[in-house]
Amino acid sequence: MGALELIKPGVRAQPSYTLAALDSVRKLNQNESPYDVPEALKREIAERVIAQRWQRYPEFVPATLLERLSATYGWPADGILVGNGSNELIQATLSVALAEGDVVVAPAPTFSLYRLLTSVYGGRYVPVPLAADFQFDVDRLVETAVRERAKVIILTSPNNPTGSALPEGAVERVLADTDALVLCDEAYQDFGGPSALGAMGGDDRVIVLRTWSKALGMAGLRFGLGLAHAPVAREIAKAKLPYNVNLVTLTAAEVLLGHAELREANIRRIVATRDRAFARLGTVPGMRVYPSAANFFVVRFERAAPREVFRRLYEGYGILVRDISGVPELEGCLRISVGTDEDMEAVEGALREILG
Amino acid sequence: MGALELIKPGVRAQPSYTLAALDSVRKLNQNESPYDVPEALKREIAERVIAQRWQRYPEFVPATLLERLSATYGWPADGILVGNGSNELIQATLSVALAEGDVVVAPAPTFSLYRLLTSVYGGRYVPVPLAADFQFDVDRLVETAVRERAKVIILTSPNNPTGSALPEGAVERVLADTDALVLCDEAYQDFGGPSALGAMGGDDRVIVLRTWSKALGMAGLRFGLGLAHAPVAREIAKAKLPYNVNLVTLTAAEVLLGHAELREANIRRIVATRDRAFARLGTVPGMRVYPSAANFFVVRFERAAPREVFRRLYEGYGILVRDISGVPELEGCLRISVGTDEDMEAVEGALREILG
Repeated sequence: MGALELIKPGVRAQPSYTLAALDSVRKLNQNESPYDVPEALKREIAERVIAQRWQRYPEFVPATLLERLSATYGWPADGILVGNGSNELIQATLSVALAEGDVVVAPAPTFSLYRLLTSVYGGRYVPVPLAADFQFDVDRLVETAVRERAKVIILTSPNNPTGSALPEGAVERVLADTDALVLCDEAYQDFGGPSALGAMGGDDRVIVLRTWSKALGMAGLRFGLGLAHAPVAREIAKAKLPYNVNLVTLTAAEVLLGHAELREANIRRIVATRDRAFARLGTVPGMRVYPSAANFFVVRFERAAPREVFRRLYEGYGILVRDISGVPELEGCLRISVGTDEDMEAVEGALREILG
Repeated sequence: MGALELIKPGVRAQPSYTLAALDSVRKLNQNESPYDVPEALKREIAERVIAQRWQRYPEFVPATLLERLSATYGWPADGILVGNGSNELIQATLSVALAEGDVVVAPAPTFSLYRLLTSVYGGRYVPVPLAADFQFDVDRLVETAVRERAKVIILTSPNNPTGSALPEGAVERVLADTDALVLCDEAYQDFGGPSALGAMGGDDRVIVLRTWSKALGMAGLRFGLGLAHAPVAREIAKAKLPYNVNLVTLTAAEVLLGHAELREANIRRIVATRDRAFARLGTVPGMRVYPSAANFFVVRFERAAPREVFRRLYEGYGILVRDISGVPELEGCLRISVGTDEDMEAVEGALREILG
């Protein structure tokens, strides 16, 4: 027997998650922050890291860090899990919840990792289309979850790649009307929309995920958080590998927790740039830009082929965006991350020329 | 419905993997290297890291690093996966292979993560006891795998926590006589015993895992490798999260690849200390030390209670070892990592006093 026959068919049927590495002047394809961690802070982190013993495993439970995160997020330390990016916590949560055939209900389109991991764990993925203008269809999410007896409901708000936020009260309604675990992926919540953190106290089925890869400029170091009721957190922790957040990331998180002003300033700058860019991009003829509560936009072209716009942005202007036009609901669309004001002016100018 | 009822029963039944953090003068409980990465190299790595943009995700496929790893390990770059420690690659491999009820055959005792992850993925874990003096019972492993139609066979060599190595030719025999994926965990192979790398060319069912957390002193930064035939590696990669090895660890790996002499010197020093310590510990009355191809020993006490010896080592001498006496096959035993010569002399002296 060959090795490939020993891999589950559900896994073999999934395409790989890939992303070609393209050099660019303006990198607006991964919703990263345009603002690096300041060099003085990098040096402070580096000195603290150099003083540690690299040959020793990181702390099994980073108790001091968890206490400080507890104060920042207003949630008990024993209900906080730290991960190597929030992806790791998505993985751990789905793997402890999903047995063969269990149903995951999620909005469509959304972050592709959910579908991939559901297949890996033998679950059944039931996408629920967003409504007009990419708004969440909470009625249909609830109806589908009830009909399919969903084990897990994914609520990504603001949603990637559309930028749409859940309406206020939606999480509470999903909790009241279904029996599922409600996994609230708030990777982009720093930039807008309501948070499910307020709904956590009343129901132990809510799990909230946050990341420092976006607003905090930590994509290169990877740091994510999961917030859950302590008994649920303990179960999720069983599928989370020990020592997965390395000593550098733990140290960087501790140092950055002492600089809340930096995080707030970055968020203010990015949100201001987003709002200015939204207004300007809305005046470009031949395309539509959708409102976004996150740090990226979906734009839809009236006539131009998105692949062609993508190519001309890249080759003619050094602007790298994400071509999402292969997703059925996103035909004709590209996704553009919010960079600096200068980046967004360059995008606007380039689109006017390309579409003109 | 409460959230805990939404967690799979097989997960809830598993104990958590935990390790209490105890401060100690001599930390001999996690099989870490006693030798830190030299400060000059740490500073070189830190400067390269500071020069990078932390707000950008790491490379999706670290092509240059993979080419250099290919040269080092003698295996094609498209069959190499890098992980945040080799644990991540254990997780990814089991999750793409195991459907509900699939059987994993493994020696017993062995590294506890295998049983835990098999449960998480709904598999059935079938342990095969080691023979006398912790030697691998290859006949029984093969018989059990055939009888149970094993999907995956775990071969950890040298085995943790016993230190026993597979006999030469065992991997080839397991491949010839079974239809399973053969996951060869060689976390400790730098220190002794044959490697399965030689058996890889002939059969695509072999997957070899290596780690830099032991011989290379990278436990704090986490770096592991998986080697497989390229089509198998591509399937495993689907369950491996993107960007999981952060930019610091990727940079450290690149710098350390240029210092093979450091790795070799560390291995030579640790092996020499192990061999000296084995001879000396063998003369301590009241206990037996088992031979080890790894960087740790199992010792079994004739009369003394291992918990009591553990406590006295820690409280009286600041020596922290691992109490493994709760594992059925390891009643009466402790596991002691190989530290420096001075560490091992301290262990010997302390044991003579405690047992005397």
